[in-house]
Amino acid sequence: MISNFILKYIGFFAAFCTTIAFLPQALKVWKTKSTKDISLYMFIIFTVGVLSWLIYGISISDLPIILANAVTLILSLFILIYKIKYK
Amino acid sequence: MISNFILKYIGFFAAFCTTIAFLPQALKVWKTKSTKDISLYMFIIFTVGVLSWLIYGISISDLPIILANAVTLILSLFILIYKIKYK
Repeated sequence: MISNFILKYIGFFAAFCTTIAFLPQALKVWKTKSTKDISLYMFIIFTVGVLSWLIYGISISDLPIILANAVTLILSLFILIYKIKYK
Repeated sequence: MISNFILKYIGFFAAFCTTIAFLPQALKVWKTKSTKDISLYMFIIFTVGVLSWLIYGISISDLPIILANAVTLILSLFILIYKIKYK
């Protein structure tokens, strides 16, 4: 049985990882300007999803959902713009 | 003010998008076997994050978190394995 204290930190750690994971990909496309292997559909669908999470988070006034998805939205949009610009 | 009914569906839609988004990327690497532009660090960090979400979901017995992250974990692991195999 995992204590609530540890559980809370697993949740924070999970949210941190799935948010910050897009940073190395954003840096990679920014440096290389090469996006051939990246799926356009992935980043369209993902960006729409993250925007929906943000609307959801704002609607229920949940700060962790708002913060995590605001950061992910910026990174995801950045990668999407590079994908469209540098096919 | 958004009604609870619509709000629930925004949440489901958001979860659906951020889960299914990885399918076109998985199909792309499977077809092309080319992963040069994909960030290894993104998929290592993301896979660790999704695995943590899964552990979190199982610990609090939250079925939507479990289902969404189980599907994402399979897709993310698939892309990560292809990234390691076909540099």
